[in-house]
Amino acid sequence: MDIKEQSLQKHYEWKGKIEVKSRVAIETMEDLSLAYTPGVAQPCLEIQKDYEKSFALTRRSNLVAVITDGTAVLGLGDIGPEAGMPVMEGKCALFKEFADVDAFPLCLRTKDVDEIVDTVYRISGSFGGINLEDISAPRCFEIEKRLKEICDIPVFHDDQHGTAIVVAAALLNALKVVKKELDAVRVVINGAGSAGIAIARHLLRIGVKELTMVDRFGILYDGAPENNPAQQELAQQTNRSGKKGSLADAMEGADVFIGVSAPNIVSEAMVKSMAKDPIVFPMANPTPEIMPGLAKQAGAKVVGTGRSDFPNQINNVMAFPGVFRGALDCRARDINEEMKLAASVALANLVDENERSEDYILPRATDKRIGKVVAAAVAEAARRSGVARI
Amino acid sequence: MDIKEQSLQKHYEWKGKIEVKSRVAIETMEDLSLAYTPGVAQPCLEIQKDYEKSFALTRRSNLVAVITDGTAVLGLGDIGPEAGMPVMEGKCALFKEFADVDAFPLCLRTKDVDEIVDTVYRISGSFGGINLEDISAPRCFEIEKRLKEICDIPVFHDDQHGTAIVVAAALLNALKVVKKELDAVRVVINGAGSAGIAIARHLLRIGVKELTMVDRFGILYDGAPENNPAQQELAQQTNRSGKKGSLADAMEGADVFIGVSAPNIVSEAMVKSMAKDPIVFPMANPTPEIMPGLAKQAGAKVVGTGRSDFPNQINNVMAFPGVFRGALDCRARDINEEMKLAASVALANLVDENERSEDYILPRATDKRIGKVVAAAVAEAARRSGVARI
Repeated sequence: MDIKEQSLQKHYEWKGKIEVKSRVAIETMEDLSLAYTPGVAQPCLEIQKDYEKSFALTRRSNLVAVITDGTAVLGLGDIGPEAGMPVMEGKCALFKEFADVDAFPLCLRTKDVDEIVDTVYRISGSFGGINLEDISAPRCFEIEKRLKEICDIPVFHDDQHGTAIVVAAALLNALKVVKKELDAVRVVINGAGSAGIAIARHLLRIGVKELTMVDRFGILYDGAPENNPAQQELAQQTNRSGKKGSLADAMEGADVFIGVSAPNIVSEAMVKSMAKDPIVFPMANPTPEIMPGLAKQAGAKVVGTGRSDFPNQINNVMAFPGVFRGALDCRARDINEEMKLAASVALANLVDENERSEDYILPRATDKRIGKVVAAAVAEAARRSGVARI
Repeated sequence: MDIKEQSLQKHYEWKGKIEVKSRVAIETMEDLSLAYTPGVAQPCLEIQKDYEKSFALTRRSNLVAVITDGTAVLGLGDIGPEAGMPVMEGKCALFKEFADVDAFPLCLRTKDVDEIVDTVYRISGSFGGINLEDISAPRCFEIEKRLKEICDIPVFHDDQHGTAIVVAAALLNALKVVKKELDAVRVVINGAGSAGIAIARHLLRIGVKELTMVDRFGILYDGAPENNPAQQELAQQTNRSGKKGSLADAMEGADVFIGVSAPNIVSEAMVKSMAKDPIVFPMANPTPEIMPGLAKQAGAKVVGTGRSDFPNQINNVMAFPGVFRGALDCRARDINEEMKLAASVALANLVDENERSEDYILPRATDKRIGKVVAAAVAEAARRSGVARI
């Protein structure tokens, strides 16, 4: 039985990967009077007097909403809100397991930007943070931007920023393995959707100078008719010479390939055309752009995928639990660039110099140190950059 | 320290009365592959092919949303969504404790009927049932009606129907104590909001013939300028002679008083003016219409309140956990009149003839039999009335 069939069977057994647990014992009438009527009137009135108390007197301070519209689930595309739930529940289980964050999944029956923004805003008073998930580009950019403006709790689109944080950490360590410098390598990102664009922005911010974005229409260039606003902005920042061409053209001579696109679209020949000791991160889920074995065979020095069943898993699970743990711990009003950068560096530093190798550029996703270390770095960056409330 | 101060202190200690628990262990890379990528793609695709599978492969089949806009919280009125959360969390803890239902609280930042309906509909694919809570009348009637029409899962406004179910059970047993018959007593309900109207409708359905509704403007009559549509409809059903007057007028000679209104508005004189062996249920929360001691002193034979610190607690906690447990167990598409009636009768029958007394007309709210017995009766009624899917 392969992993998918096994997972399906497990899901039938689990009947849900999360549940709601009561934190109070209700055995006696006195318990009931304290946890419910009439005693409960008092915490209600305290919050009415002072909104901030909602964080102290309810679960809000530890609670994150995981929200999707089901339009870009894994690599499966628009499968609808209900079909996206197994991923969201998994995410919530990981939040708890790796950072003791209570996360609750909500899959929305709408794809309309205004409706999604309105809906999320209206429930935001019940949470301490909003994790947007698997919402397709370019809508996800506007949704996140608008929610960041109107919500008083941090909003984070994990497919963008979680992925970017972990890719940057992986790249920092992979470059050490191949002994190349961040500002001297040429990076190709294939897939100019939410993840690709966020990775590009994050890499530019941490010091990458030469970056080529590729999408299904080929190399992203200034003024391409297919560009959405985010792509157009990035085309200007990354391709000043206005180069055009295919993915194969882009990969020729490149040092780094990062794929957040579609299964099996990178050939061995393309990898062979790259510069010496290439770094190849084919991260399409569940099937990568090129299978790791093939990439290695074609000369890739360091290969990382999104999957947990190959070495060098580049998976957001190393970012989002700790990022939110840190943001909640200091009651950050935002998750900003400083915090994301701090997360990347903290994650990369978890790999000891002596252990680092082509098959070990990131800690194992199940490493329980990650959440704590990332959280501490994120909270510290939040305080330093002035977005922490406590 | 009184109960309210004690409750406040407990709430600071609890830091939330519910939390999200993971149902899967994620210790190894294989665990991660099964619960998350890449394995999780398979249950997603199964649900995409067959929507019904969303109940088998996610927590949906055991999950209820507890939703408020914070406009009618306890007897505290419109205290806002965040301030309503301690009650909603308490409710969720009770759902789990008494019927093993996973319930999750969402307090909405809007009071607009259309916006509430839209918001709840959009999240409804993530749940197996919707429990509306503490939404003020008359908006709650329209919200519930419209949601029942558009949602494919049961929608239940607990302040209406939960209260009605338990009041009816209490009345059935109280009448046995005072040896009067349902179709021969005159009942006064004070408070023509959501609970009052639902209680009236439910009592008429189970056999009460003489019913007088009173609101802050006095006895409800056909054509009163203050009537909302629900009140107008009820005025025609309950007050055919067009009687007008005050609460005191209504209570004179009545056999039963049911209060879902405001603190301390019933005097000893009013109770004294009632028929022999009156039944008095002053259920305003947290402070009743008349304190039980005073009512007894004025001659009330059976007194029940909404509070857990007096005998005969008439509290929805005896209804909603079992009602939803029953509805979820048979995948009911609705919670209909037959199911509510079955719940009242099942609850009343839990009090043994030998134990029944003026101070014991309902089981204790903490009695763990209640959830199971109510659930079984509700599921059976759902199957009988054709709304069960399994």
